[in-house]
Amino acid sequence: METQTLFYIVPIAALTALGFAWYFFKQMMKESEGTDLMKEIASHVRSGAMAYLRQQYRVVLIVFVILSIFFAILAYGFEVQNPWVPFAFITGGFFSGLAGFIGMKTATYASGRTANATRQSLDSGLKLAFRSGAVMGLVVVGLGLLDISVWYIVLNYFIESISESQKMVVITTTMLTFGMGASTQALFARVGGGIYTKAADVGADLVGKVEAGIPEDDPRNPATIADNVGDNVGDVAGMGADLYESYCGSILATAALGASAFYVNPQMQTKAIFAPMLIAAGGIILSILGIFVVRTKEGAGMKELLKSLGRGINFSSILIALFTFFILWLLKIDNWLGISFSVVTGLLAGIIIGQSTEYYTSHSYKPTQRISESGKTGPATVIISGIGVGMISTAIPVITIAAAIILSFLFAIRFDVNNMLEAQNISMGLYGIGIAAVGMLSTLGITLATDAYGPIADNAGGNAQMSKLEPEVRKRTDVLDALGNTTAATGKGFAIGSAALTALALLASYLEEIKIGLVHIGQTTIDVAGRVVNVAEASIPDLMEYYQVTLMNPKVLAGVFLGSVMAFLFCGLTMNAVGRAAQKMVEEVRRQFREIPGILEGTGKPDYAKCVEISTKGAQREMLFPSILAIVVPVITGLVFGVSGVMGLLVGGLGSGFVLAVFMANAGGAWDNAKKYVEEGNFGGKGSEAHKANVVGDTVGDPFKDTSGPSLNILIKLMSMVSIVMAGLTVAFSLI
Amino acid sequence: METQTLFYIVPIAALTALGFAWYFFKQMMKESEGTDLMKEIASHVRSGAMAYLRQQYRVVLIVFVILSIFFAILAYGFEVQNPWVPFAFITGGFFSGLAGFIGMKTATYASGRTANATRQSLDSGLKLAFRSGAVMGLVVVGLGLLDISVWYIVLNYFIESISESQKMVVITTTMLTFGMGASTQALFARVGGGIYTKAADVGADLVGKVEAGIPEDDPRNPATIADNVGDNVGDVAGMGADLYESYCGSILATAALGASAFYVNPQMQTKAIFAPMLIAAGGIILSILGIFVVRTKEGAGMKELLKSLGRGINFSSILIALFTFFILWLLKIDNWLGISFSVVTGLLAGIIIGQSTEYYTSHSYKPTQRISESGKTGPATVIISGIGVGMISTAIPVITIAAAIILSFLFAIRFDVNNMLEAQNISMGLYGIGIAAVGMLSTLGITLATDAYGPIADNAGGNAQMSKLEPEVRKRTDVLDALGNTTAATGKGFAIGSAALTALALLASYLEEIKIGLVHIGQTTIDVAGRVVNVAEASIPDLMEYYQVTLMNPKVLAGVFLGSVMAFLFCGLTMNAVGRAAQKMVEEVRRQFREIPGILEGTGKPDYAKCVEISTKGAQREMLFPSILAIVVPVITGLVFGVSGVMGLLVGGLGSGFVLAVFMANAGGAWDNAKKYVEEGNFGGKGSEAHKANVVGDTVGDPFKDTSGPSLNILIKLMSMVSIVMAGLTVAFSLI
Repeated sequence: METQTLFYIVPIAALTALGFAWYFFKQMMKESEGTDLMKEIASHVRSGAMAYLRQQYRVVLIVFVILSIFFAILAYGFEVQNPWVPFAFITGGFFSGLAGFIGMKTATYASGRTANATRQSLDSGLKLAFRSGAVMGLVVVGLGLLDISVWYIVLNYFIESISESQKMVVITTTMLTFGMGASTQALFARVGGGIYTKAADVGADLVGKVEAGIPEDDPRNPATIADNVGDNVGDVAGMGADLYESYCGSILATAALGASAFYVNPQMQTKAIFAPMLIAAGGIILSILGIFVVRTKEGAGMKELLKSLGRGINFSSILIALFTFFILWLLKIDNWLGISFSVVTGLLAGIIIGQSTEYYTSHSYKPTQRISESGKTGPATVIISGIGVGMISTAIPVITIAAAIILSFLFAIRFDVNNMLEAQNISMGLYGIGIAAVGMLSTLGITLATDAYGPIADNAGGNAQMSKLEPEVRKRTDVLDALGNTTAATGKGFAIGSAALTALALLASYLEEIKIGLVHIGQTTIDVAGRVVNVAEASIPDLMEYYQVTLMNPKVLAGVFLGSVMAFLFCGLTMNAVGRAAQKMVEEVRRQFREIPGILEGTGKPDYAKCVEISTKGAQREMLFPSILAIVVPVITGLVFGVSGVMGLLVGGLGSGFVLAVFMANAGGAWDNAKKYVEEGNFGGKGSEAHKANVVGDTVGDPFKDTSGPSLNILIKLMSMVSIVMAGLTVAFSLI
Repeated sequence: METQTLFYIVPIAALTALGFAWYFFKQMMKESEGTDLMKEIASHVRSGAMAYLRQQYRVVLIVFVILSIFFAILAYGFEVQNPWVPFAFITGGFFSGLAGFIGMKTATYASGRTANATRQSLDSGLKLAFRSGAVMGLVVVGLGLLDISVWYIVLNYFIESISESQKMVVITTTMLTFGMGASTQALFARVGGGIYTKAADVGADLVGKVEAGIPEDDPRNPATIADNVGDNVGDVAGMGADLYESYCGSILATAALGASAFYVNPQMQTKAIFAPMLIAAGGIILSILGIFVVRTKEGAGMKELLKSLGRGINFSSILIALFTFFILWLLKIDNWLGISFSVVTGLLAGIIIGQSTEYYTSHSYKPTQRISESGKTGPATVIISGIGVGMISTAIPVITIAAAIILSFLFAIRFDVNNMLEAQNISMGLYGIGIAAVGMLSTLGITLATDAYGPIADNAGGNAQMSKLEPEVRKRTDVLDALGNTTAATGKGFAIGSAALTALALLASYLEEIKIGLVHIGQTTIDVAGRVVNVAEASIPDLMEYYQVTLMNPKVLAGVFLGSVMAFLFCGLTMNAVGRAAQKMVEEVRRQFREIPGILEGTGKPDYAKCVEISTKGAQREMLFPSILAIVVPVITGLVFGVSGVMGLLVGGLGSGFVLAVFMANAGGAWDNAKKYVEEGNFGGKGSEAHKANVVGDTVGDPFKDTSGPSLNILIKLMSMVSIVMAGLTVAFSLI
């Protein structure tokens, strides 16, 4: 088939995803929202969430305006950047925010309805929550691919260049700036949303559950609405923006790599650019099929539910693997078989990471159960063993990714081991790594559905509690919620695993931009170990040699240290932000308990709005510094240490950030489920000392898994994107 | 002066240190041990500690026998290693163990006497504890330099080689294997001792303080002797072995670098080898002077005490800086001025790291006070803010080290920025980095005294409590102990900061060994970008190019990931080991409280021995796996991924391990002092809710700061040492 014809599969798949999202949304809206009280509570949460998002987007808008003006000056004033950059940057941010917005809107409509559906049966609750989660999954992938295909069409139409090959390089690197827009938006969404939700959650738990001894989500707790709003703005809107960024990032980085790997062969180049998009497009359609496979029966426990979701994901994965071989064969891309295996490597790596996450965070297995048990000796041992488990749990995902890097690289170069570090092989191999990331995220339509479903179930539980529904309903939503904790941890595993692979592909894109920058400042040749090399034709090994980006270069080593510390510093800042905001929340809730008469008896009305306001203000104030740090540090590093320092920074940040992110996500997930395990009646059950100790673990885990940990994967990529966009500056000027 | 004559300063300084250590020891032994009860308790602790050390050394002996046989086979059977390696390896282990043993012996004699001296005044307590700590400091540096100088003399006498330059390379790289012996011993000592002490500490605190509500070190608590034994085997013996290894490692790695950097100029080469030894020798003498400067007056608070110790350290530091300029000028080494500045850079970096550690961990400052305050909202917020502070506290040390790397490099190459990555400059610059590490550790004689003093003061407090001395005594020992927490954290900062610099120097030594390995398998030339280069003359950039140790090599990247995960996995394993052993301790203490009649009333006698046994067994069982992992992983990585993979592993481990170590040490120190701050009467004082919450933080911090964190710097270096010793194997065989 004609290559250009195949491309149209991409926008068609995108529109199909959006169509199904619309269909699931409409289906969900048809369901009843339940009693009047249920409706009222849902509307409180909804309006709180929307109010926050408006506020959040206002702040982010200012950041975007400033950065866009800066890019516009670079592009139109100094002409050191191409004129499309500011627009691409803005659309990336816009669509990322839109994906979060739609997902959140859906979630806030869905959770009350899920609570109501759960009154009938566990299965109808699961189905409704899961299909509503699917709206988010499909919106993210749909908008992502739509954005990518529209931009490709526009740029392909307008951009003129000296050659077809060069044009493709310009198109793909320009599209990366739309990735930077998405990353910037995503970082703010994750950090702001994460601080919001955890300040509310921690605050509500500490005073409500621990001090006053009232249950979670009790309407007497003034922070309870803020807590439920938080699930939506952090775990839904934040995650949506995050995964939109991951999804587009992996496709765009791979496309850019394809453009440079096949530079000498324009026909193959276009195929290499389309390949990741086509795999993603197939993934969308097959994810939709998988969504219809998920169902369960009444009385199902955690294991059955997990199996049910797993069935859907496995079903999609197998079909996507088969589809990959078919479409790459049809595309007639060079070494289609090897590249297909690279994709499958990524897909498998994602599944292994998912399984390992499940093992370490689900309370069906020993590690989490042992954390629960250590509650018998108090909160300190819960924390120690949770941190121990979290750290140990990093081994399998990281070894898996290391193996995936090597295998996807080798597949893409036909296992030409003896020459694996030749110029052409390096480019091809990196393309293999990039497309493995695309493979890992190709199931996003369905995996994100399992992920977004979690906060919906959580909120459904909240709604059931506040609406004083029968305890049976709450028990059912608790089952759904526990499952949500594990799927959420799995989703984070995917996000961070794919980020690691994508970040490697972005390193290569960085070097492409460096070449463009060199040409721009008038340096058309470089001296590589005595050879004079034309910059436009310089290979990756040439640039490595020219800038001496080796492990014995002190600038690289200093960069590695700075990168490592960035990950920890960023986490520390966001942890403290949550701590501070939570403290304010605790004081406010205590004040209300003290000052509002009859509040604990249920006769006085708590001031929910005040708590919502505290979370909102806390999040807005605290999110700025760490986020701006992520943008500024790569720029400064480039200006001081040059190209080799930046590469050290990115690799150091990636190495530490990746492991730290897995640690934090898994420790947090395990603590949460360890508490749930005790609540199911183990080691003394609810109200026992072991339970109190595990509640402490759960509270500590909150910012781990929902604020600091998941922001790290965006941090890693945003630092790469910033470096890419600012490459011209680094080339033109660096101190040593 | 004649270069060879100057060398004799080194053994003389070593013997002087040992002489003063002997003098301080004798002085201390003259003091009274106090009442009969005090003597009895001290003897319990002493015999428990000795019993543990015997058991520990028995296990380590087996490991050493196995590894030595392995090296002997490699050296004599296959002749792939030089015949001195097994002996050097064994002496390194022996002296490292001896340093720990002597330090511990001293500490166990000193703590009872310190308690007794504190009855008179705070000053006499401080002086006695500090001078006893100085015994350890001086034994470590004395034995270290003695070992180094004797080995140098022996090898210089026996080794024959094709040329003087080659001989020096063989001598210095052989001496590195003695560093591996020291590292292996140190890792076992830190991990085993760390598990022992924290299992006892956590166990004693959880049941005694939290459940039974009896004070720390109360004689009714069956785990209290084990707890006090633990301070000696972990914080004294473990730390002694650890810093012996750091001290020798930095000198040996720098000497080896000197041998290769000045390969073409034999005369300068000898000077470059002597320079780090001479600086260390001067550091010893001037540290002894500094020790005499430390004194304080009655009623001194934390700030005054810290100032008093700081005065001693600053006094020594300034003199060492001046001495460095003098001795390097006298040595007439090339660029003596620049190299002196490299040394001063290291010295300054150490001081900055120390100051920053003090700021983040002493309760005289905001960060720790805020952790205390967060206790008002329960243990969860204490943990969250402690982790936040710990993570943020990594920024200054890491940025300092990054700056020190660049500056010490540039000083050593006369700020030849434009050619900084030329072959000769890379070697010289790395030499500058290595000698900066020597500078940082040159004050070890006195800084280690301030460090070892901590557990002595801690044990003195324990003795005072158990011997039912007047509360005033305990109050004074508490002041000394709180100070000890901060100096201990500072000491860990030095250990890890110097480890980061030393590890970089070891990377270069690794490449030297790779060259030797290449020649050994008969490959005398390598092809570097088209040039044929003689292996013996290959420069660092040549080898980088040949093995493509760049950041775009997937083997390097996979290695970086594996290195990062090693740091986390190692910490996770040791954290869990402490958790498990502590759990057993808790159960035993609970059992005794339940079953021994009258134990809580003080009429029944607790079974101390049983608790000592639990800690001993737990430590021995749990220390093996993580330690062996550290030895095996670099070997496997080399066999699978080759040279570039190993370098990735080492840099990844260094990047993550360094930051993680600082985080864990500082978070742990801050939690400990946050608790002490509450105990001083803030936020409700002892017994308040805030206090209970801070006790949880302190308990969690125990394995952070005394088990997992401080083991990391040894892990980093041991992995490098193993790679160096096994370089021949990697060269001969690697999978891809």
